[in-house]
Amino acid sequence: MSFRATVLTLYPEMFPGALGLSLSGRGLADGRWSLDTVQIRDFATDRHRSVDDTPAGGGAGMVLKPEVLARAIDHASPPGDERPRLLMSPRGRPLTQNRVRELAAGPGALIVCGRFEGVDQRVIEARNLEEVSIGDYILSGGEPAALVLLDAIVRLLPGVMGNAASGEEESFENGLLEHPHYTRPQDFEGVPIPDVLISGNHGKIAKWRREQAKLLTRERRPDLL
Amino acid sequence: MSFRATVLTLYPEMFPGALGLSLSGRGLADGRWSLDTVQIRDFATDRHRSVDDTPAGGGAGMVLKPEVLARAIDHASPPGDERPRLLMSPRGRPLTQNRVRELAAGPGALIVCGRFEGVDQRVIEARNLEEVSIGDYILSGGEPAALVLLDAIVRLLPGVMGNAASGEEESFENGLLEHPHYTRPQDFEGVPIPDVLISGNHGKIAKWRREQAKLLTRERRPDLL
Repeated sequence: MSFRATVLTLYPEMFPGALGLSLSGRGLADGRWSLDTVQIRDFATDRHRSVDDTPAGGGAGMVLKPEVLARAIDHASPPGDERPRLLMSPRGRPLTQNRVRELAAGPGALIVCGRFEGVDQRVIEARNLEEVSIGDYILSGGEPAALVLLDAIVRLLPGVMGNAASGEEESFENGLLEHPHYTRPQDFEGVPIPDVLISGNHGKIAKWRREQAKLLTRERRPDLL
Repeated sequence: MSFRATVLTLYPEMFPGALGLSLSGRGLADGRWSLDTVQIRDFATDRHRSVDDTPAGGGAGMVLKPEVLARAIDHASPPGDERPRLLMSPRGRPLTQNRVRELAAGPGALIVCGRFEGVDQRVIEARNLEEVSIGDYILSGGEPAALVLLDAIVRLLPGVMGNAASGEEESFENGLLEHPHYTRPQDFEGVPIPDVLISGNHGKIAKWRREQAKLLTRERRPDLL
């Protein structure tokens, strides 16, 4: 069984977007994974097909109504569906490469794209939605975050990228930022490739890369050390 | 002058993607911001139009060639262009809402989408590229990250979202995750909206929300406190 993604959104036309191209697009065409979208608005029942309402207690913005979203989820993920249910939200736990790997090893994911003003808390709890944040910044909605999450997952699926993915994986597993890369020409605008990299001494090269990775991590991401 | 984005990529067809729809799409159509893409491959000079080469010192993957990218950057950002030059990369400094705000207040951005294997370090330095990471996970390329960065920026541009953006902004400025949201109906599957939110007591409501935000932040993101 291949990885099965279902995205609940008010903008189904945003999918597959970038995921329909390049390696993820080829994987989609080859059946390595599947993607369908559910238009949340189709589960509104009033005349105006309204999906949001003003926040209880006052304040700016609108809140996604609980019954509409609950119906959409129940439709997309009936009893027996073992896929995790994710809600893209800046309130969520930060996405990590470990979580990406876990998801990629599973049957798929139901991904709810919230509107940034928020989703009624009761439906988050009643439908057991796992809030996932891709970073500490605010987006117009969950859709760009869902595209990022799926891109990260899909490249790890069997047959999508082949060996290309594995090297990079390891470098992140170290908990270090990656060392700098160089390629030909030997001279670029008067700057040479560092001598060690053309020395042919694999032990020295590995050592230099490790040191560079540590230096960079200390400078940019002391939180990772 | 409106915000001007130029994206350097091997997949220009991924743009504007989701940014061409919804509020960012309307803002694009209304000239609140502009987006153009540059195909990096157009700046390759050999017969095969090759853009990458094997890494100096060995290892998996390919590295984006420095001269090809340098020519693309020099074309897209001639002398006098005051826009910052960003390179989407997991090695970068993590994107924050503060950096998003700074970028949104500026003239625009040149955004280079790296291939995940890496970009020659010499062109990063010679062209003064600021490496930006949207989170600690690996993507197939910089394009989904560029879409996220632009979405975050564009929603803050004058006239794109109006007041809708301002409330959420403040909540992130507190350095806390947002409190839970509720809306009608009063009863959802037997669960009521918390009493305090329908009390009409604005002082109590504000206090409850602050407390909830602190609780949630302590639980999910102690690193923010």
